[in-house]
Amino acid sequence: MKYELYYWPGIPGRGEFVRLALEEAGADYVDVARGGPKDTGGMPAMSDAMSDAKTATPPFAPPILRAGKLLIAQTANILMYLGGKHGLAPTAEAGRLFANQLQLTMTDFVKEAHDTHHPIAAGLYYEDQKPEARRYTEIFLKERMPKYLGYFERVLDQNPKGDKYLIGGKLTYPDLSLFQVVEGLRYAFPDATRRAERRFPLAVALHDRVAERPRIRKYRASPRCIPFNESGIFRHYPELDG
Amino acid sequence: MKYELYYWPGIPGRGEFVRLALEEAGADYVDVARGGPKDTGGMPAMSDAMSDAKTATPPFAPPILRAGKLLIAQTANILMYLGGKHGLAPTAEAGRLFANQLQLTMTDFVKEAHDTHHPIAAGLYYEDQKPEARRYTEIFLKERMPKYLGYFERVLDQNPKGDKYLIGGKLTYPDLSLFQVVEGLRYAFPDATRRAERRFPLAVALHDRVAERPRIRKYRASPRCIPFNESGIFRHYPELDG
Repeated sequence: MKYELYYWPGIPGRGEFVRLALEEAGADYVDVARGGPKDTGGMPAMSDAMSDAKTATPPFAPPILRAGKLLIAQTANILMYLGGKHGLAPTAEAGRLFANQLQLTMTDFVKEAHDTHHPIAAGLYYEDQKPEARRYTEIFLKERMPKYLGYFERVLDQNPKGDKYLIGGKLTYPDLSLFQVVEGLRYAFPDATRRAERRFPLAVALHDRVAERPRIRKYRASPRCIPFNESGIFRHYPELDG
Repeated sequence: MKYELYYWPGIPGRGEFVRLALEEAGADYVDVARGGPKDTGGMPAMSDAMSDAKTATPPFAPPILRAGKLLIAQTANILMYLGGKHGLAPTAEAGRLFANQLQLTMTDFVKEAHDTHHPIAAGLYYEDQKPEARRYTEIFLKERMPKYLGYFERVLDQNPKGDKYLIGGKLTYPDLSLFQVVEGLRYAFPDATRRAERRFPLAVALHDRVAERPRIRKYRASPRCIPFNESGIFRHYPELDG
């Protein structure tokens, strides 16, 4: 089965968490809205998936994954599905629930990272909410980022199977997501992240371990991987990197 | 098995979504941090659950549910678990994924509703972010609230089993959560919500249907149900109800 991923074509965004799982799984997929050499339908196809008046499972927003007859939205939900199908999630109930719990905590973290540049409204430009962004970001970098990273550090530290992965003794999808969050923070706030990272060596080591996985390396060197930019979730505005 | 719910004792908050599912299920549970006639441990017990250095599944924040050996956090994750155990979730894969998808969209909605009074930081007082709150709320009420309510209206409208419930032909846990969101919006923004509701008759009818369920009625008339107040997610500040 070939998966269809629907996501905004110009940014890594929340779609990247799904792409990393698809790539690590070696899954066959097409990034529909990006088009490409063989036309995949592009943005009109994504609009169609969004507004489909017949589906019993309408999505609120991308990313969306079509998997055969299933149309699945919400990043953590897509990852739970893919994790189960491709050996990227624990099989026992406690582990499956914990993977989802970690991913939902990642969702909260990513939302707050996004709001550093859009604290008032996603529908306004950054330029229209700069004073508020500065105020939000100062507290995010001082309190929230360390709190979240400290939490994942603690999860690694308390893992009874060792501190190499968030759950058990092998890679699961929240590991891939933590990698992406660290990448994003380094891009958006290089100074603040470099300083903060010293306190979270296990999380940084997990990031590095994911970066070295053959399929992840290959993917990130390919044109399929969209670089961070100032339209996405993690944006580098030097004036915010306190 | 007696469940243990850990949540801040003075507010409905995110714990209320879990309480509604427990009550509708007729489950045996104790609201640990609230204490009560038989001492349940109160806040110290919640702190212990939060900081437990032995657990392999540490929580980031309440609500937390202890279910036998499981310690489960993140509202949508707890609801997915309870939904499956108590007949409040679909049994087929597509339905289970869609229930989770809807709940995660509810999570996003609730976070934005919270941020109307705390757009800069949850760690600051409302009084320290009033101008930003006013700006945030204006856009929330004009654009975001109708967008989310319109989405759930569409889900009801496109349900192939009829428009009485979000999924299939009977109640599932996202129905309970939508009820609570409508209740919260009515409390926080009575004027704006009354005006907005006219456009979403199916969502309002679902709210009313949930309110009339015998176990929900009984629960809401009991002292177990904490009224909305100005320490929770949904707060009534008249100056924000544009």
